[in-house]
Amino acid sequence: MASTDYVNHLEALVKDGVLDVSLIDEAVLRVLDLKEELGLFDNPFRNADPLKEQQTMLSEPHLASAKKVAVESAVLLKNETPLPLHPGLRIAVIGPFAASHETNGPWSWHGNNAQNESIAEVLKRRDIELSIVKAGDAASDYDDADIEKLKRSDVVLLLLGENAHQSGEAHSRADITLPGKQAELVGFVKSLHATAVVVLQNGRPLVLENILAADAILETWFLGTKGAEAVCDLLYGIANPSGKLTMSFPRSVGQIPVHYDGLPTGRPNKHELRPREYVTKYIDELNSPRFPFGFGLSYANFSYGEPILSAPSIGPADHLAITVEIHNETAVAGVETVQLYLRDHAARISRPILELKAFRKIPLAAFETKTVDFELSLPDLSYRLADGSVVWDPGTFTVFVGPDSVRLKSASFLLKN
Amino acid sequence: MASTDYVNHLEALVKDGVLDVSLIDEAVLRVLDLKEELGLFDNPFRNADPLKEQQTMLSEPHLASAKKVAVESAVLLKNETPLPLHPGLRIAVIGPFAASHETNGPWSWHGNNAQNESIAEVLKRRDIELSIVKAGDAASDYDDADIEKLKRSDVVLLLLGENAHQSGEAHSRADITLPGKQAELVGFVKSLHATAVVVLQNGRPLVLENILAADAILETWFLGTKGAEAVCDLLYGIANPSGKLTMSFPRSVGQIPVHYDGLPTGRPNKHELRPREYVTKYIDELNSPRFPFGFGLSYANFSYGEPILSAPSIGPADHLAITVEIHNETAVAGVETVQLYLRDHAARISRPILELKAFRKIPLAAFETKTVDFELSLPDLSYRLADGSVVWDPGTFTVFVGPDSVRLKSASFLLKN
Repeated sequence: MASTDYVNHLEALVKDGVLDVSLIDEAVLRVLDLKEELGLFDNPFRNADPLKEQQTMLSEPHLASAKKVAVESAVLLKNETPLPLHPGLRIAVIGPFAASHETNGPWSWHGNNAQNESIAEVLKRRDIELSIVKAGDAASDYDDADIEKLKRSDVVLLLLGENAHQSGEAHSRADITLPGKQAELVGFVKSLHATAVVVLQNGRPLVLENILAADAILETWFLGTKGAEAVCDLLYGIANPSGKLTMSFPRSVGQIPVHYDGLPTGRPNKHELRPREYVTKYIDELNSPRFPFGFGLSYANFSYGEPILSAPSIGPADHLAITVEIHNETAVAGVETVQLYLRDHAARISRPILELKAFRKIPLAAFETKTVDFELSLPDLSYRLADGSVVWDPGTFTVFVGPDSVRLKSASFLLKN
Repeated sequence: MASTDYVNHLEALVKDGVLDVSLIDEAVLRVLDLKEELGLFDNPFRNADPLKEQQTMLSEPHLASAKKVAVESAVLLKNETPLPLHPGLRIAVIGPFAASHETNGPWSWHGNNAQNESIAEVLKRRDIELSIVKAGDAASDYDDADIEKLKRSDVVLLLLGENAHQSGEAHSRADITLPGKQAELVGFVKSLHATAVVVLQNGRPLVLENILAADAILETWFLGTKGAEAVCDLLYGIANPSGKLTMSFPRSVGQIPVHYDGLPTGRPNKHELRPREYVTKYIDELNSPRFPFGFGLSYANFSYGEPILSAPSIGPADHLAITVEIHNETAVAGVETVQLYLRDHAARISRPILELKAFRKIPLAAFETKTVDFELSLPDLSYRLADGSVVWDPGTFTVFVGPDSVRLKSASFLLKN
């Protein structure tokens, strides 16, 4: 972002005759021209004044947008099936982030976490009965009195994950399981025969194998200013989860890199649970991720029809229409993110086995059926070579439509010369 | 290696007129011409007859070569400092491969492991006193009587690692720590206050963090027919270890890929143990591997002088000579693999921070000093672009010389147009 090369070396380079000062003049003039164009010489503080700041920052419309984004970003990974919660249930809130306001995450330099509510504060404000709210990093942080309170709770919310300093720029982790001993809290809660609902905050895919015993897992990333309210809306069904994963969550660190758009292998592993000899596989791990790209549950359940193509073959100037019927099988309204992937079977270079080409967020009322339309044309069927040129190849393509990058229905067409 | 495409489809393709039969005739004729050239029509079993097989397979000269290769391939990773062993010591042999003959590894299809000796058999033949030889995968496999024998041993050899089916083609492992519970055997032996010497067999780099408490670790890969004899020669100082790692051994699975020839980063981590903010790093792991590319110990100890270049700058037609003094600081004769790496500082594309360009195996008598010569010319300073063309760029290069890819001494020169 900021380099010290100019500050440290430019003057000496000009003095030594390596650099012509006219080059610097030219570069500086470009910046000055832009500043003049923006009116910064007349008003250098354009768009920045105390009154405007007061009217804008954390204003009602902005907070409403922040909440909408937060609600749509959270991803429901598991629900068997305590969610959505009934408002009458007695709730415990534990885990490292049980009292945390830090939902802004590592890239919010000027945001103030102190202005955010915690999940427990939102629940309290909404008159939910809280049996215990106690931050702790491990089972040993909870004493006998705490355990009694947990036992008398209908649902235990475990607020687990990463703090803002465990994620973000130059904060890579070699081990992406949950930091410290917090994963043991799930087994601890289950050993008390309580219902365990994990609310995760984190800035990267995590390996979640040691918390899969939880009854529900809601992935909330770093949801920002209105994160806690959004999470409570989702937990209580005031909002219905509609977020989908934008990356794959591996089963183990050794699977990394694991992503849906890999190149084909010479010997693909077609029967992952009973692999043949000499296919591309691990002897101690499955190939597939735990939660694939595009995955995310809803309180509704959507079924997909077969994708129907407008033509069995197209030419380079044609458009291909794809339609698919989506049906809400439940009495709960929801929003489904319908995903369209493409496979290019015959190309001059190796092409990914799947590429996301389009998605549409479709609201569906209870038991509603909708027909969703997509369209593909030559730019969607083209790709870039190493020399920068964009090319396409005639041959078979397969279109895949589904709720994630695994549960897909397909139809093929021919691209002709 | 073998495809069924021709067998399954060629006949139909000719019948359907897709393929001209003359193309097949042409391809077949190429094979027949080669067979005729080799004399296979006169004697189809050329070079294969029972007498020759008897004279050749496992013959004395071949076995001697097999042993030489095995001795030179093993890599001593740690020695603090039970090795080399004195023949008078009482030895215990435990671990999953304590009685194993399986040193041929996964890619020896026609080799017969039953023809190999085990390490214990070689030791016995050499009149070494063996207190116990017992294969076991975990500490619980050794009972009280075994423990008494281990306590009465001077040195415990732990034969750990992977079997042939845990390595090789289509046998990737997601978790490359030692399989099963065998790593706990090191702690078990150390808890008995015994000296623990680990002899590893495996077909890939392993994460060895949980056996680093061993007093010595000898990496033997799959050393083949004469593997056991080679290992015993090395353990007892009949041969001096000279093998070097041809890959990096990571500290943890999350470091992978970890290799010495990575591309430079914008913010390199120059002070790994106390990294600055916003450098390329992990927050829970070092960047460096546990054992770097090129690493390997000897019973001797070699010191390096500064590399001396024949010229401060060269043109594209010139040769650059590099000389470096290597000194054996010990009373033990040994062989040092002197490694020469190169860094190309200014190039049109990003170039690796180090590239191995040459190595020489130098035998050094006790306290001997030798001058080692290398030579670089334009092909060594060139590289291949994505379009296949070989190019070079004028500018600064640095030559590094040392015993591995980390402990390096350097000198720079200029390549002029």
